[in-house]
Amino acid sequence: MNLESALSYSHTLLKPIIQAGDTVIDATVGNGHDTIFLAGLVGHSGQVLGFDVQQVALDETALQLQLTGQAHQVQLIHDGHQNLDHYLAPDQQISAAIFNLGYLPGSDKTIITHAQTTLSALDCCLSHLRRGGIVALVVYYGHEGGEAEKTAVLNEVQQLDQHEFQVLQYGFINQVHQPPFLIAVQRR
Amino acid sequence: MNLESALSYSHTLLKPIIQAGDTVIDATVGNGHDTIFLAGLVGHSGQVLGFDVQQVALDETALQLQLTGQAHQVQLIHDGHQNLDHYLAPDQQISAAIFNLGYLPGSDKTIITHAQTTLSALDCCLSHLRRGGIVALVVYYGHEGGEAEKTAVLNEVQQLDQHEFQVLQYGFINQVHQPPFLIAVQRR
Repeated sequence: MNLESALSYSHTLLKPIIQAGDTVIDATVGNGHDTIFLAGLVGHSGQVLGFDVQQVALDETALQLQLTGQAHQVQLIHDGHQNLDHYLAPDQQISAAIFNLGYLPGSDKTIITHAQTTLSALDCCLSHLRRGGIVALVVYYGHEGGEAEKTAVLNEVQQLDQHEFQVLQYGFINQVHQPPFLIAVQRR
Repeated sequence: MNLESALSYSHTLLKPIIQAGDTVIDATVGNGHDTIFLAGLVGHSGQVLGFDVQQVALDETALQLQLTGQAHQVQLIHDGHQNLDHYLAPDQQISAAIFNLGYLPGSDKTIITHAQTTLSALDCCLSHLRRGGIVALVVYYGHEGGEAEKTAVLNEVQQLDQHEFQVLQYGFINQVHQPPFLIAVQRR
């Protein structure tokens, strides 16, 4: 058994947390892999809110969701994740959220996530997160602008009150090409 | 399900790696928890080599091993782990090793592990490690001298060739009292 990649470990952590019927967030739909993973866990009685600023990502994901019979429980939203609050009721709880920070693989590398909007969205997810719930951030930072976002996110999560949240960092530290690492924030 | 502590996650990683009949190393016997964990995994046909410089730690662990019927497969060695090579045949393979860096809880806080001897022992374990095997280091560093050892170990493992080894770091980053973190080195 090999050590899991950051991306794979994010799924390992979320799987036992998410129950059928839950509301969860895919803050960066991208290639839709996480959206489909989440849709399978929440089931037909649950709800995935998936955000992306690129229509092409949403269209491709919508097609995959239809093919896998999971379109019903997913709301794909063509808006920045910093506006997440507009799509949740004030007292609505979520059990999980996933972020993939960086750019959409195989797409325009100048369209990237940015610290300010990422932190707004993270803050919103944490305020809706139920006890035991997890927000997972897979941080790609090898691209231009990636280092700044990585630093800002790390600074933010390191300051989360340890009585309210556990903040785990998981990543490989001997690789030449900066592989993504995982930050997992769990509400106690 | 809560996020696992570094110590607990070291066991989660090692459990599927270690088979009955394997030879494994407990480089820092201490309170014996890891020794007993390893003894259970290798079984009567396997072998645990357990090192400690404090006789009291070995005596206490010997007693626990007898009580749990696992004394047969454990060799407790009153020697520094930097001399590990004296106890392994040159071509002997190990599937795992555990280090707890720092001091023995509840004991003399001035008897601590040190960078130089830790790195010698680590080097020896890696040279005997079979493919897929894991060396787990649980790094306590809140005590005097801990920061220097932590830095030396991190520098060393970050330089391991990524084609030969994967080096994972796992730890909590928002806690005031420096909790231990885990380094897991797996041979590819």
